[in-house]
Amino acid sequence: MSDGEPMPQPTPLLDTITMPEDLRALESKQLRQVADELRAETIDAASETGGHFGAGLGVVELTVALHYVFDTPDDRIIWDVSHQAYPHKILTGRRSGIRSIRQKDGLYGFTKRAESEFDPFGAAHSSTSISAAMGMAVARDMQGRNNNVIAVIGDGAMSAGMAYEAMNNAGDRNSRLIVVLNDNGMSIAPSLGSLTNYLVRLHEEHPTLSPEELTEQAGAAFPDAFKTAAERASAYANSNANKGTMFEDLGFAYIGPVDGHDVDALTAVMTKLRDSNSDAPVLLHILTEKGRGHPFKEQHPENYHALGKFDAETGEIAKSAPKAPSYTKVFAQSLIEEAEDDPAVVAITAAMPSGTGLDLFGKRFPDRCFDVGIAEQHAVTFAAGMAAEGMKPVAAIYSTFLQRGYDQIVHDVALQKLPVRFALDRAGLVGADGPTHAGSFDLAYLCCLPGFVVMAPSDEAELKHMIATSIAIDDRPSAVRYPRGEGFGVALPDRGNPLHIGKGQIVREGSRVALLSLGARLRECVEAADKLMENGISATVADARFAKPLDIDLIQQLVLNHEVVVTIEEGAAGGFGAHVLTFLSSEGLLDRGVKVRTMTLPDRFVPHGKPEEQYAEAGLMARDIVAQVFGALEMDQPRHLREVGA
Amino acid sequence: MSDGEPMPQPTPLLDTITMPEDLRALESKQLRQVADELRAETIDAASETGGHFGAGLGVVELTVALHYVFDTPDDRIIWDVSHQAYPHKILTGRRSGIRSIRQKDGLYGFTKRAESEFDPFGAAHSSTSISAAMGMAVARDMQGRNNNVIAVIGDGAMSAGMAYEAMNNAGDRNSRLIVVLNDNGMSIAPSLGSLTNYLVRLHEEHPTLSPEELTEQAGAAFPDAFKTAAERASAYANSNANKGTMFEDLGFAYIGPVDGHDVDALTAVMTKLRDSNSDAPVLLHILTEKGRGHPFKEQHPENYHALGKFDAETGEIAKSAPKAPSYTKVFAQSLIEEAEDDPAVVAITAAMPSGTGLDLFGKRFPDRCFDVGIAEQHAVTFAAGMAAEGMKPVAAIYSTFLQRGYDQIVHDVALQKLPVRFALDRAGLVGADGPTHAGSFDLAYLCCLPGFVVMAPSDEAELKHMIATSIAIDDRPSAVRYPRGEGFGVALPDRGNPLHIGKGQIVREGSRVALLSLGARLRECVEAADKLMENGISATVADARFAKPLDIDLIQQLVLNHEVVVTIEEGAAGGFGAHVLTFLSSEGLLDRGVKVRTMTLPDRFVPHGKPEEQYAEAGLMARDIVAQVFGALEMDQPRHLREVGA
Repeated sequence: MSDGEPMPQPTPLLDTITMPEDLRALESKQLRQVADELRAETIDAASETGGHFGAGLGVVELTVALHYVFDTPDDRIIWDVSHQAYPHKILTGRRSGIRSIRQKDGLYGFTKRAESEFDPFGAAHSSTSISAAMGMAVARDMQGRNNNVIAVIGDGAMSAGMAYEAMNNAGDRNSRLIVVLNDNGMSIAPSLGSLTNYLVRLHEEHPTLSPEELTEQAGAAFPDAFKTAAERASAYANSNANKGTMFEDLGFAYIGPVDGHDVDALTAVMTKLRDSNSDAPVLLHILTEKGRGHPFKEQHPENYHALGKFDAETGEIAKSAPKAPSYTKVFAQSLIEEAEDDPAVVAITAAMPSGTGLDLFGKRFPDRCFDVGIAEQHAVTFAAGMAAEGMKPVAAIYSTFLQRGYDQIVHDVALQKLPVRFALDRAGLVGADGPTHAGSFDLAYLCCLPGFVVMAPSDEAELKHMIATSIAIDDRPSAVRYPRGEGFGVALPDRGNPLHIGKGQIVREGSRVALLSLGARLRECVEAADKLMENGISATVADARFAKPLDIDLIQQLVLNHEVVVTIEEGAAGGFGAHVLTFLSSEGLLDRGVKVRTMTLPDRFVPHGKPEEQYAEAGLMARDIVAQVFGALEMDQPRHLREVGA
Repeated sequence: MSDGEPMPQPTPLLDTITMPEDLRALESKQLRQVADELRAETIDAASETGGHFGAGLGVVELTVALHYVFDTPDDRIIWDVSHQAYPHKILTGRRSGIRSIRQKDGLYGFTKRAESEFDPFGAAHSSTSISAAMGMAVARDMQGRNNNVIAVIGDGAMSAGMAYEAMNNAGDRNSRLIVVLNDNGMSIAPSLGSLTNYLVRLHEEHPTLSPEELTEQAGAAFPDAFKTAAERASAYANSNANKGTMFEDLGFAYIGPVDGHDVDALTAVMTKLRDSNSDAPVLLHILTEKGRGHPFKEQHPENYHALGKFDAETGEIAKSAPKAPSYTKVFAQSLIEEAEDDPAVVAITAAMPSGTGLDLFGKRFPDRCFDVGIAEQHAVTFAAGMAAEGMKPVAAIYSTFLQRGYDQIVHDVALQKLPVRFALDRAGLVGADGPTHAGSFDLAYLCCLPGFVVMAPSDEAELKHMIATSIAIDDRPSAVRYPRGEGFGVALPDRGNPLHIGKGQIVREGSRVALLSLGARLRECVEAADKLMENGISATVADARFAKPLDIDLIQQLVLNHEVVVTIEEGAAGGFGAHVLTFLSSEGLLDRGVKVRTMTLPDRFVPHGKPEEQYAEAGLMARDIVAQVFGALEMDQPRHLREVGA
């Protein structure tokens, strides 16, 4: 942060706009100024809050044009991924909250139905918008309404299979639908894949159009009402008006490319689309620049996806001094070390090279690092194909995004017992990105799969050992799931050592109570054990290390020798604790009574906030463990331990 | 079955072939005869076994040409979905087993790595082949080998997003890879989607090529070695040799269309591809006819995906008399009844109209039934979009295939609490289709999601009530999971009545033991209770109905009033029983000792066989329940109860 308050740019026109209806009361010649002020406001807000603002700066003019031309919220705008929706939030009654975005109790960093009627569909994972928009368009037709439905999707998101499925389906129907392809040539990482090459060729070969040309093209795209979608596609293929694009091949009318920063051009073409009677789906291709207009853009080009707070005058990014290396970085370093020794080790990311740390791996081993684009389904089976040929693939995918490759995990990996290694970053609660990005369910959805090895490190040194373990496991699939953020600053071993599969360890010996942790809550367990000891309750603390296979000897020993056993994990019910209970019951170890409690994420979606705020809300802090133990022992808890922060 | 044995056609040439090396020893002019004999053998085998043979009959010539030209198994052939692999199995050492295909201990109905080195990658879910092939191709390049990798994928499978993700990735690399697009214009259901229209146009506009034209085209497709994939794609776009196809837009060389029943043309073009030095990915577009050559094809066109056994002379299909309506049909009828009353009810299938019963719904309500193609991701979010607009969508998707829409269930449905209804057919073990199609994990992957209602009917009448319940639940997502096959023949109510959410019911009052069933094992529980009573052990039997929310009053009552409580479900550990245990432990209900056992599918993949064989192997029959109870009571089980079938 700067020393003094930065002086915000005046925004006289924007100040008159609370809701889109205020925007629509303006004359169209005023829109350029509105856009400029909206951009200034977005930059100023971002300087205070950080977050995903680069995408929003690229769609300022689009946002203004959409809300000017269309009758929101009756007309539906669905922002794909929706980290570009900050300007949209500012124009739709949420300007006063924009500086609290992504903070606890503040606005959500993505669109959210519960937040505003102008957010008709929440989005945070990529490439959902066309499917949702098509559902809304079909519902509209059935209900006899005639509102517009507009999906705004980036070129990166368009590379995902889900978007293609939706295009393939929508292009075959007569449901009026507008897809705005926001082509900024850069998704989170530089876009990869042949679609990117194709889009580059498309706009190299076709100059952007003037407003007049655009309205003409928009007219020509709908020469007549077509009886069927197949007829329409055939007409496109044979008409001179069309450009023979892939989108036309898929049954969409194609219009563009348009300069996405020319608010007049956007307004003109959208007005034409709005007023057309055609029921054909339309793809409007606009070219934009991510981070457009930011004064310090050149200094931090790599940061244009998301950024911390920064000084709006100098562009200096405020960084809190890291206490310890992040799990992400320890993962990357560990994997590099493994790969130094073993040429079979390769790494796969689905468009998240820096988020997963594979950018570091890729620097060291450019030919052994594969960024397949936003394509988790493909990523998993691509890895399975490599494993089938004797390579040692590591698929590094956030826990929440691996949900998108679940069938491939079951069908291509687990069923064939192929040794694909999964590195699940962002497991558990993830802070400001909130519930859309929480990695809550991986323990439930992986531990049920036969033959899988599932690990969770209690600190960054353990992560290093677990990466070594996963490389060593070459006869079946394995996964390591670890939290977002920094480790604890523990000393890192020179090299990871493969762990004994399915063996946990006792961290502290006690007698009356046992705390069995999976993952990074171990510190909370130790702290809880200290507090319990202060109250005369001796607690054993154990680190399970493996959610599957379970360390049944350790679990048996804990249950037989303690009055209370508490399991704790950073995941939803149905995961580690549930499998511990299943084991105990099947072996009759609960038959004679033992007080077992499983502490998991609650059965609700935990709102965004700092991770520690989220874990407090989730009831997974040391004090919650203490309370759980007192409850199980049917003892009254001393008052001072019940205080917040105790 | 016919009364007499049908007279099999003689197959003198095929009889000389045990392995592909025998085929490769023949002269190319003999291949036509080999293909004819292979087709005859396939038909004859299918008449005995039933199964997915229509697809195989369409690729007889392709199978012969592939194994003749390429050096299998060093060259890898990956059959997408792989129900077309019967002829492939016959040519690769498995002819003697082909008549036991899909039977217990017989050949698997799909490719399977463990079955043959000629099956380098197992497949049974659609659209995985290009991803796996690309993984194998990249591994080959890294390992310095030079074998070919060939993916064979149908036009229906090409409509799935996963295939597009793989094309988008492969088209951007220089890894030698051949994709054979087997275009038969008919996936399981008639193909839907604009890709189908596009392919139809493509071969309407371009005649199939002669062997000479093909080899010329194959040469022209690789004018030079390209430095980068982008250069290659650009060259295609600007070359006269190319046809401007979508595949070229995505960086693939496009060759075709080829008559897929012209074995000489196939052999010629494949030889050219084999001998090329290019490292560009190639798409070879072949046109085939599903069910080609079957003498009774015209009689049963709707049956060309899969079929029961039939009389090879008359074409009469052998049907075992159904004892009761299938769950599928009861679902469809129930949904039609709901939809008669409520115009907001709509249904969605992902290319499985007849498998899910939605063909019946679609006949009654053609405008309210949506087949989105092989596109589960899109299907789920499309449904969510409709729910957001107040429709009442029912997404009918097999349990195993819904795995492919898991992220969309979490992110688009559960997180937004949208009332999408999921009808999961084929939950639990599914018989001859085996572990690739088992619906084992849905309870684990759904019960962990906040706000979800998860139901499983104990018989077809309960299914009817649960469909009514799911339509009535309009404030959150819900799922009904039900088995493959016939119900029990119980009387069906005139209409389904919405159940009290989260309430089970006592089916039989007992005293010492409680059997708590979720789903269709309830009959086994009643039978077990009878046997227990014969031994003086009184058993309560309860139907949980809901896996989520749990009927906590019922569960508490069972635990407090019985010495042993056994839960049973047709799903993997981590589902219903695990959540029952989690509830019991959290409430301290296990603290003083109670003998709880959870019976689930075992922690391994259960091989194919008849469902009752599979459930016997899984240990979920009445006798297993009895044994579980005796074990929990620490009583010796009377010998006669231990006998198989007792």
